[in-house]
Amino acid sequence: MRILGIDPGYHRCGFAVVARGAPGAVELKGSGTIETRRGEDLALRLCALGLELDRLLQAWAPDCVAVEEIYFTKNAKTAIGVAQARGVVLEHSAAAGISVAEYAPTTVKSQLTGNGRATKQQVAFMVARLIKLDDTARLDDELDAIAVALCHAMRADMPAELR
Amino acid sequence: MRILGIDPGYHRCGFAVVARGAPGAVELKGSGTIETRRGEDLALRLCALGLELDRLLQAWAPDCVAVEEIYFTKNAKTAIGVAQARGVVLEHSAAAGISVAEYAPTTVKSQLTGNGRATKQQVAFMVARLIKLDDTARLDDELDAIAVALCHAMRADMPAELR
Repeated sequence: MRILGIDPGYHRCGFAVVARGAPGAVELKGSGTIETRRGEDLALRLCALGLELDRLLQAWAPDCVAVEEIYFTKNAKTAIGVAQARGVVLEHSAAAGISVAEYAPTTVKSQLTGNGRATKQQVAFMVARLIKLDDTARLDDELDAIAVALCHAMRADMPAELR
Repeated sequence: MRILGIDPGYHRCGFAVVARGAPGAVELKGSGTIETRRGEDLALRLCALGLELDRLLQAWAPDCVAVEEIYFTKNAKTAIGVAQARGVVLEHSAAAGISVAEYAPTTVKSQLTGNGRATKQQVAFMVARLIKLDDTARLDDELDAIAVALCHAMRADMPAELR
């Protein structure tokens, strides 16, 4: 099973491709960020994001796209910006015929660290224990995309009644 | 000039096509709502919305799409839902090569009624004075789409330095 994890954003959107084979065998196939041009109109930036997403969906042919739900923080403006990009991610995934799994941020943290309120550092530490990463420095958005893809890799087979 | 006004939503999305000829000559060419299936996954609903938007953009070939900015209300969940649909609207418009005009809700109200805090009733009254409407009952989302299209019809030519 191949999972495309996405951390949505219209300025920078993180992505990660994780492949799961036998139980416990999870491998990072690729990851990175999609960046759009600062100062350009939002509609054009979302359009650029859509084009790059289509390329990723085609290149990696994932079985599933995993995306975090939006945690509603104090910064409403940021949340609305992220939500607009998230809409494009969900829509392009569905239009490509790929199922979408949505996880609350607390679920991702709990699944990876055992603590729903884990810090970014705790999540990053556990990501590095659960999956082999090279020494490349990674941006937060990329790490977040790896985290949500890993979370899905671990939970995808869980029957609904056990969740 | 033909303007497609959109009031974004993932459950129900209002649209209106307004044509502007000579100064003051504004005509409603068509309006309605796009509805998606309650209970279906958000990604599929956004996908259905995207398909209908593409049909509208193709059928009406507007010169511009006019959309309200998101007014941040107390209901964060609603705002995030609307923002996800709004992202799809902006992205599909830009992908079709059509420019997008964004207006703050207070600008739309001011432009149509002279009062940035006008009620829905005041806006509806002024819409009916500014454009010929038949007696069809219209949903709020449809009226909001007519309002933002009308706002753009009235303001599109205004030089940036006079705004």
